[in-house]
Amino acid sequence: MPIPESVLYPPFHVVRLNHILLTVTDLERSRLFWADTVGLQVTGQTEDRVYFRAMEERGHHCVVLQKGETAQADMLGFKVYSDEDLDKAERFFRERGLPTAFVDEPFQGRTLRTRDPLGIPLEFYFKMEKLPSIHQKYALYKGVKPLRIDHFNCFTPDVQASVDFYNSLGFRTTEYTESEENGRLWAAWMHRKGGVHDMAFTHGVGPRLHHVAFWVPTPLNIIDLLDLMATTGYVANIERGPGRHGISNAFFLYIRDPDGHRIEIYCSDYQTIDPDHEPIRWDLRDPQRQTLWGAPAPKSWFEEGSRFDGTDVREPVYAASPIVAA
Amino acid sequence: MPIPESVLYPPFHVVRLNHILLTVTDLERSRLFWADTVGLQVTGQTEDRVYFRAMEERGHHCVVLQKGETAQADMLGFKVYSDEDLDKAERFFRERGLPTAFVDEPFQGRTLRTRDPLGIPLEFYFKMEKLPSIHQKYALYKGVKPLRIDHFNCFTPDVQASVDFYNSLGFRTTEYTESEENGRLWAAWMHRKGGVHDMAFTHGVGPRLHHVAFWVPTPLNIIDLLDLMATTGYVANIERGPGRHGISNAFFLYIRDPDGHRIEIYCSDYQTIDPDHEPIRWDLRDPQRQTLWGAPAPKSWFEEGSRFDGTDVREPVYAASPIVAA
Amino acid sequence: MPIPESVLYPPFHVVRLNHILLTVTDLERSRLFWADTVGLQVTGQTEDRVYFRAMEERGHHCVVLQKGETAQADMLGFKVYSDEDLDKAERFFRERGLPTAFVDEPFQGRTLRTRDPLGIPLEFYFKMEKLPSIHQKYALYKGVKPLRIDHFNCFTPDVQASVDFYNSLGFRTTEYTESEENGRLWAAWMHRKGGVHDMAFTHGVGPRLHHVAFWVPTPLNIIDLLDLMATTGYVANIERGPGRHGISNAFFLYIRDPDGHRIEIYCSDYQTIDPDHEPIRWDLRDPQRQTLWGAPAPKSWFEEGSRFDGTDVREPVYAASPIVAA
Amino acid sequence: MPIPESVLYPPFHVVRLNHILLTVTDLERSRLFWADTVGLQVTGQTEDRVYFRAMEERGHHCVVLQKGETAQADMLGFKVYSDEDLDKAERFFRERGLPTAFVDEPFQGRTLRTRDPLGIPLEFYFKMEKLPSIHQKYALYKGVKPLRIDHFNCFTPDVQASVDFYNSLGFRTTEYTESEENGRLWAAWMHRKGGVHDMAFTHGVGPRLHHVAFWVPTPLNIIDLLDLMATTGYVANIERGPGRHGISNAFFLYIRDPDGHRIEIYCSDYQTIDPDHEPIRWDLRDPQRQTLWGAPAPKSWFEEGSRFDGTDVREPVYAASPIVAA
Repeated sequence: MPIPESVLYPPFHVVRLNHILLTVTDLERSRLFWADTVGLQVTGQTEDRVYFRAMEERGHHCVVLQKGETAQADMLGFKVYSDEDLDKAERFFRERGLPTAFVDEPFQGRTLRTRDPLGIPLEFYFKMEKLPSIHQKYALYKGVKPLRIDHFNCFTPDVQASVDFYNSLGFRTTEYTESEENGRLWAAWMHRKGGVHDMAFTHGVGPRLHHVAFWVPTPLNIIDLLDLMATTGYVANIERGPGRHGISNAFFLYIRDPDGHRIEIYCSDYQTIDPDHEPIRWDLRDPQRQTLWGAPAPKSWFEEGSRFDGTDVREPVYAASPIVAA
Repeated sequence: MPIPESVLYPPFHVVRLNHILLTVTDLERSRLFWADTVGLQVTGQTEDRVYFRAMEERGHHCVVLQKGETAQADMLGFKVYSDEDLDKAERFFRERGLPTAFVDEPFQGRTLRTRDPLGIPLEFYFKMEKLPSIHQKYALYKGVKPLRIDHFNCFTPDVQASVDFYNSLGFRTTEYTESEENGRLWAAWMHRKGGVHDMAFTHGVGPRLHHVAFWVPTPLNIIDLLDLMATTGYVANIERGPGRHGISNAFFLYIRDPDGHRIEIYCSDYQTIDPDHEPIRWDLRDPQRQTLWGAPAPKSWFEEGSRFDGTDVREPVYAASPIVAA
Repeated sequence: MPIPESVLYPPFHVVRLNHILLTVTDLERSRLFWADTVGLQVTGQTEDRVYFRAMEERGHHCVVLQKGETAQADMLGFKVYSDEDLDKAERFFRERGLPTAFVDEPFQGRTLRTRDPLGIPLEFYFKMEKLPSIHQKYALYKGVKPLRIDHFNCFTPDVQASVDFYNSLGFRTTEYTESEENGRLWAAWMHRKGGVHDMAFTHGVGPRLHHVAFWVPTPLNIIDLLDLMATTGYVANIERGPGRHGISNAFFLYIRDPDGHRIEIYCSDYQTIDPDHEPIRWDLRDPQRQTLWGAPAPKSWFEEGSRFDGTDVREPVYAASPIVAA
Repeated sequence: MPIPESVLYPPFHVVRLNHILLTVTDLERSRLFWADTVGLQVTGQTEDRVYFRAMEERGHHCVVLQKGETAQADMLGFKVYSDEDLDKAERFFRERGLPTAFVDEPFQGRTLRTRDPLGIPLEFYFKMEKLPSIHQKYALYKGVKPLRIDHFNCFTPDVQASVDFYNSLGFRTTEYTESEENGRLWAAWMHRKGGVHDMAFTHGVGPRLHHVAFWVPTPLNIIDLLDLMATTGYVANIERGPGRHGISNAFFLYIRDPDGHRIEIYCSDYQTIDPDHEPIRWDLRDPQRQTLWGAPAPKSWFEEGSRFDGTDVREPVYAASPIVAA
């Protein structure tokens, strides 16, 4: 098995993913899309930035959009268990020769900025400004009615290297895909919070952001979103789905924001909190891996992604051929 | 069986129920409730009236609210198959000694005003102003996302007399309730359009409007409405449900508008279009009759209703005792 | 408009579609598929035939499978309003030079056998054996939990000729597709029962059966069926969907039975009972016509169908190019 | 606030609740109910016991029924993070004067048996026999399609004492109810696994088991279960709901097994994994606390529960008056 043994007592304690910072080229256009179509709540706005949270989140933001000339993914944010874990994390990254810096970030306090070995920009914080609960303010629900941010998925040129690194941080693998041709890892799903993933890696030109995902309560929310997008000028922003993933068993839809950042709407994966939870293996060429019901993903899904700020991309370490829609 | 034989070739052709005219005491308060909570679309407004339609309806209105000092139900409206059917209807009612008058009603043209023998004010029209389709304008959907008006239900002091009369108009009975004590009719559901009912009658002080019902696509719309009402100041307007009726097999919720007019939100009854479709009989004391899952209706549901304009009410022709929530 | 004026007082009264007779090559294999996967109830079985009904139907059958060497569609069955309508129908078909014969068909009594001008085999009956209601026997629900047969869709080489003929029988058009290139009809949806259709016609090599459709309560039933088929050996029998049709606004899925007979699972179309209900026009090249969400149908959907017993097929009267999945 | 500060680094690491052992008086009758109505999968059976798991669980059992003369709750089972945590737990309980014993329990290996200070029988294990995944064996899903065990709720005569104890084990409080009259705790919801609760306490004669809950994917599963129970002889086993809890925001239904053991079917609570997640406070007399939509719970819900093996019950430490259905 190409999956390393889980690190049950990691060097610092990551609780879960929390937020993403994205650069968009037209802030107002993007604000409208994320607020009215995705349905996130605006929690703050400056000239250059808009902050959003999902309906059950009490932290100040799960998405931050900032205005820029070129669309890109700027930062993936994670919450740690204590302020002391920030220091432990800083030491961990520094000792591995990775860049570290503490900044005081609006609404999230002392924040550790760093990168993983493949260049993905990461930040860790402990204490975010809390807002009043709105999960029972049903008049505010709109769009797909997103409840919380669920996970990130990144293209990486070397899935094994990415998995090994996040495994060393205590991320545990729940499902993975192997190339039948060479027995090498093609993709992996890794969690901290007890679901299928906080972070997933997909073989491809990278590192790039493949998508950020939001959790919704039922498949009908996704059908409502499809109807809404199809009749409000966003039919071309529907990329893939709806469907059931073989991997994760989740019901999904992939859409693209006005800059092409990919968003997954996701519901109904399963609980993985046990330390001895065993990962599920899939073959790359299993047609039910991507979609249990058999429909392959389009070419764009395997090829397009958002560049990360300040990181060059490179070709993957081996050539692979997933099943692509003709 | 207390149900008369169906009149398969009736004296005039009623297509279906179409609209209701209700007097409300605070037009703006009621407009907000019917538009934002029920989710009907406003199609017209004057100083004294607001007109609404549901999402798949192309006719100008299914609900008309008019301002008045005392809340009441003013008119139940039905569509006939042709202009000629209006004349046949006028003759039919006139020959039975019932009042008839033709008026030119805004948006619905030549309209026959009359009353049934128990005093319920009725109107029949053929041609209503048509509006562009909005069933695929998903950005307009709100509240419970009502698709169409479904039926009326009226208290009547003499269910047998009411059934006999509507049967003579070609309404066909789909389900009915008998009192086990005396074998007499206690309630009946009668249709023209091929569903469980356009019009139902319930034993009680009457005639009064028991409720007007709207069709929604799935039970989840009803759950969404409950969440919305419960968190926007309307928790006291939730009267009964959600539940599955034994009768009709529909999933239901009863709510009250700001004047107490009762509204049923309703989904998933069945097709009854066959001329030889046989009615289903229920015992009054069968606990699954009201609610398949066993929960009895509250007292208010058996006692409260909207008075009809210009009609006195009287006690029912016999005493009965349905199962009431303790 | 290529749609003829509706015949509001037709020569005989068709109530609705009722049943289909299909030849299958392995009766047991097909029985299992239709009973356990589709979820129809077996109501009768002989050495050569299996009879099924859906959950809210009280008539003996909506699907009859018979064993044969070559899979084909044998008969489309319709219910008329009275026994006298059978005689009126016989006269109507005979006067147009079409074959007519009365047979006594098991469970459905006196039955008129005939063909439409393009060769589709039709039968009309008035009185079918009734069975006890099972719509509230929830322990019996399985598969996709089909409530009733909803419609037929047939390939025809001459959509205009088919529409003209069924229009003369009182079928009313609710939606239709025109080729932008030549302004000719490409498809039409026609109803008797007050929904979007009892019968639809699609331009293509024909006449052939395109599909028979069943009504289910919610999109979640369709998702359940997809999960079931995907994990019980039927993933290859999933042909198209799930999706929302632009036309009819219905949520749909197309599957193929073991012989390739195409079945649509269908929910949530709209009421069309008004005699002055106006048809909706679509352009053939409108990408949201097939699927509101934009996904095109696969090639097989435009090309494959079930031959009708005893009828040769021919090429369509003009060449057309719908949008096909690459 | 009557909620003690969370113990972020507890004396031993409990992962989550895992299973319950119940005595039933007719093993076969109960097996049928739990397998066909609740829909759990039977994973083992002896003369005296039946073992079950839910659809996404890989451990051998979440429910064990054993035959006995008197129905009771025998054991609440929890999974710890490592074998070493069992020893730490043993020390913790022993040092507090609570009974401890290690047993070798079928399918779950070395198991610590103990009691909490109020007498609730608890067991902790680390390693349970694993079974192949069945969450994608959709043909096996039945009943309400339970995905996993979600939580226990127990009557306790002293909610404060119970909360204080479980808090010391690292259970964190997510929501709680105070009596307005005396400012004392009336109920509390406490978690380990990152949802609203693994364990809840309700003021009442106790200790007794109030209910064990199972997670289902959507409210429609609950509606399906209601329809099934209502038509298979179990209508009297439906006790309360369906509804939305104010507390937890979950959609719920309470049913009773053939011996009266209460089962909650539960979906859609929220994520609470953050160490600084703040508990939500409710007033006992807030009518939306129990049910967001306003319907009060029946008297039985406040009074009836399952006795624990070997533990006497006592009256609560103060008198309280929740809102009870008239």
